[in-house]
Parts: sequence; structure tokens; C-alpha cells
Amino acid sequence: MLCGVGDDAAVVRSRPISVTSVDTMLDGVHFRLHEAWSTPTQIGWRALAGALSDLAAMGAQTGEAYLALGLPEGFTERQALELVRGSQELATHTGTTILGGDVVSAPVLMVSFTVVGWAQQQSELVKRSGALSGDLIGVTGRLGGAAAGLALLDGQIESGDCEAAALQRVHAPAPRLAEGRALALAGSHAMIDLSDGLATDAGHLGRASGVLLEVDLDALPLERGLQAAAARLGRPAWELAAGGGEDYELCFCAAAKDRERIEQALREAGGVGVSWVGSVVEGEPGVTLLLRGEAQQLEGFEHRW
Amino acid sequence: MLCGVGDDAAVVRSRPISVTSVDTMLDGVHFRLHEAWSTPTQIGWRALAGALSDLAAMGAQTGEAYLALGLPEGFTERQALELVRGSQELATHTGTTILGGDVVSAPVLMVSFTVVGWAQQQSELVKRSGALSGDLIGVTGRLGGAAAGLALLDGQIESGDCEAAALQRVHAPAPRLAEGRALALAGSHAMIDLSDGLATDAGHLGRASGVLLEVDLDALPLERGLQAAAARLGRPAWELAAGGGEDYELCFCAAAKDRERIEQALREAGGVGVSWVGSVVEGEPGVTLLLRGEAQQLEGFEHRW
Repeated sequence: MLCGVGDDAAVVRSRPISVTSVDTMLDGVHFRLHEAWSTPTQIGWRALAGALSDLAAMGAQTGEAYLALGLPEGFTERQALELVRGSQELATHTGTTILGGDVVSAPVLMVSFTVVGWAQQQSELVKRSGALSGDLIGVTGRLGGAAAGLALLDGQIESGDCEAAALQRVHAPAPRLAEGRALALAGSHAMIDLSDGLATDAGHLGRASGVLLEVDLDALPLERGLQAAAARLGRPAWELAAGGGEDYELCFCAAAKDRERIEQALREAGGVGVSWVGSVVEGEPGVTLLLRGEAQQLEGFEHRW
Repeated sequence: MLCGVGDDAAVVRSRPISVTSVDTMLDGVHFRLHEAWSTPTQIGWRALAGALSDLAAMGAQTGEAYLALGLPEGFTERQALELVRGSQELATHTGTTILGGDVVSAPVLMVSFTVVGWAQQQSELVKRSGALSGDLIGVTGRLGGAAAGLALLDGQIESGDCEAAALQRVHAPAPRLAEGRALALAGSHAMIDLSDGLATDAGHLGRASGVLLEVDLDALPLERGLQAAAARLGRPAWELAAGGGEDYELCFCAAAKDRERIEQALREAGGVGVSWVGSVVEGEPGVTLLLRGEAQQLEGFEHRW
């Protein structure tokens, strides 16, 4: 940073390619401060995590973050500082510099992060549009935790063995920056972060690439305790894992020959595992969810705060 | 742009120094859509103008803009497109590329722009902190128009000869990008844009520079028709010119010896004039407003939508 908070704008020495994303969250839509589902600290962390996850999905190196904060009446200065502290914690953890932004009055709490990442050259980055027929589909980490966490907060399920992992997903998700970068450098063809849920996001990736992603629901890596949580909800676990959003894991496509190389790169990036959950074929661009070979629909599943 | 809307993030080839600012506006706080004071097109223009004005104040070249848009129930797709068209009009006019952003549901209309400008080297840019004792204080254009425009919209004054200029200020302000760049290259020591009003913004500049700005209220360049509008409001015109915000002109400090050079640079930049409105002295850092040598207070003046 050359000049930050306190001037009209922040000044930063660039690297050759800049990568920018905006993510906005509002009380009642993306979190429930007003019902005490989240603390300001958790909201601050999560809002930045959502934005950084987009940089992860490009394989960019994180750089700076700019915060637009809308504060409602009754939200105290102390709460605002807590929120910023939550963001700052994740910023420190990821090597991101929060460089300022804008604070305004708002009818409800609003947290919008613009994040800027960098790359030395464009070829380091991965878009959604490069998946090829014959590729394998991989996902990092485990899925369904955020859906279970929301069900917990909503009282639809009770505390159980899924609790810690699920609430961690909801309150302090980890953007997969190191993993995204490793996947990019190891030759992934296409990548997206799982903010809307695998069923939706894999569809985006398939359509952007003009290919069909066949996802094998039996192969999904389930969050710890998800089977029990799903049973209590009277749903198959795959519905939470493929239909729930906000796990902020990465979904990517890579050549089958690069499988070992990618597993190795992810191990070196820090230990979040990879699961191979399907393959890319010619066909109507989008996604098909398969359970023991039979196409499944996700109708009626709604992931919302 | 290398890759924009539709991927996880926008990818841009950088120039050596990046300059970033965020500006957020909400219905009921920064505009009044709900009372039809502004159209969506005007709101879109003005939100981008507010953000670009910060780049102008640094002397940066405008680059890209990212829009976070919060849409309330009942705000139609057509209105949203109108809003984006308003922003796009100014973007085209200024050579800015709107590269995407985020659209969310919100309780009221929220428009937040993050703008990124560029410079070849840091020395091209002007901060708030470089004013020196002995400098002259300059402002571009005319002041008080936005305050008169708000009074018009609020029914406090009636249509008169100030109407067109005042409403233009309120609905379609022009960020002084070319002027800011010209002022930076012509050697201005410090600069700020007039978003909160000269009395406030000159104070920011004085405190950032550790000097006292003595502003001569008689010398302020008044918006066309401002005298009449002020008379109707029962206020001296300088109160609107120094206390009203959102004129989005530039206030800068420069060495007296550079006066001619700066006037010439502004003429070449496009014709918005410069007025010399005071001088920088040693003293308690901040601003003093002087009327025929007597210090004035701006108490009780509130510029608000």
C-alpha cells in the first residue's frame, strides 16, 4: 500500500494482472443479525470470506479489500468495530490488506466487500469456461456443512455431532485461496467456488464451458455429521451437499492425466482434500446429478437465511 | 478488460499504480427514489459520479467500475436497467468500463460503486496532505448548486433562474477527472473533491497537511442563480456555497508561482474555470472561513436529502 485510509482513494503498487470481485451481504437476506444468528464479528469474517472465495476460484493471489458498510440505527460503534475486527482476522489470516471503503447510514446492516487479487500473467488464472469433455470433476473439502448449520440455527435440527463443523461453515468459512492457486498452477481447466451450491455452480461452469458436467452424488464428500443431520431433516444427505450453498469450497475440472499432480498440489497447499465427483461429457451444457446412474432433481430445496 | 461479467471475478491488465475508491448511496439517505426526487437513471449516474470524483481528486486516470446493487421489492427490472443505463452513460462519457459487480435483495435501493483508476507512477498523484504554507487555494467550477437543487426539490424555493444549473448538479454532477489530472500534472500540492462541502472538505485537507486554510467567502464562485436562491432561503449565498455538499468540484492548493500554469492547464483540460479563494498559512490545522476578514461559523447548516 502506498496510501490508504484517510485520502480520497487508496493507492497501491500493481502487479501485471488485477482480479476484482464484489460481494454484498445484508441483514435478513444473507445473515440474521436481528435474530442474533450471527455476531458482528462472524458477519465481518463471512462477508470478506464470500468475496475472497471469488479470487480463490480464479486462482488469484489475494491483495486488497475495500469495505462499504451500511450501519442501521442502534448498531453501536462497538458492534461496528467488532465487525471490522472479524474481517481483519480473516484478512490477516489470508494476507489481505483492508484499505478502507465507505461507511453510510442504512436501514439494515449492509456489508459489501470489493476484493482485488493479482497475478503475474493471465495464464496463471482459471476461468469457468475451460472445461473439456473427458475432464474429471473435483471438489475441495467437504460439502453440506453450511446447509446443516443453517438448519441448526433455524431449529430444524438439534445439536449433534455435526454442530461444530456446520457452525464453522456458517460463521467462519475459509476461502480456499491457497487451494485455488495450487489448482490453477497444477493445470485445472475451469473452476468456480461453491457459493450457490454444487448443483447450481456446476451448472454455471458447464454452461460457460459448453459441456455437460455429470456429478455422481454418491461420491460427494459429506461434511462430518451430515448423514445424521440429513436424516433428522428427512432428506438424503446429497440434497444438502449439492443443494446447499455457502460452503465456499472449489469445484474444478481437470484432465484425467493430471489427477495425481492435482492431488499432490493440494496436499502441498495445506491439507484440504480433493474428491473426484464426476466427469465432463459432450451434451446439453450444464449439469446432471446422478445417483447410481439415475438423474436426480433438486426441486424444492431452498438454501436461505 | 481481459475477462469480465460472468466469471467469478473481473480480470484487467494493470498499469503500475492502482487507485481505488468506494462510494455507497442509499434511498432515503443519499437520494429519494421513494419520493420521486430522482429517476433511476439519475441515481445511476450520480452514484458513479460520486465514486469517480474521488479518482479525480487524486489526479488518477479512470479505469474500471464495479457495481454492488441492492434492489428492494417493487423495484422493477426495467428500473434496474434504467439505473445501469444512467451509470453507463457517465461511464462512456468519462472512459470508464463498468465490469460487473453484485446484485442482491435489499430493503431499500442501494447503489455502491467501487472505482479503480490508474497512474504510471505515484508522483502523478496528489494527496490531501501536501499543502504548504504560502500556497494559494483554488476551486474548480462553481459552488452551491447542489444545495440550491436540494432546496428546490424540497420545495423550499421555487423554480427560478437557478433551476437548470442546480438540478444538473443534483442529478447529473460531472466528476472533474480531466481537471484533476491537469491539476496533478501542473504541480498542485494537495487536492480533495467537494463532496461534503468546502467548509468540511477544506478542513480535511488542512488537517491532513498540518496547515490552516484561510478561505475568503467573498471569492467563492457561486453557481448561476445562487444569489436569488439564497435570498429566498433567507441565507447568505456563501452558506450554500461553502456549506452545501455534492457539488463535486475540486479544491486544491498550489504554489503562488504556479498560478498561471495551473490556469493554463485547466483551460486545456476543457474549460471549467478556476477561482482562487484563499491562502494557506501556518496555524491550527484546519480551515477558517473569512468574510471581509472576519471569521464565520457555519452552524446550523445541514446539507441532506
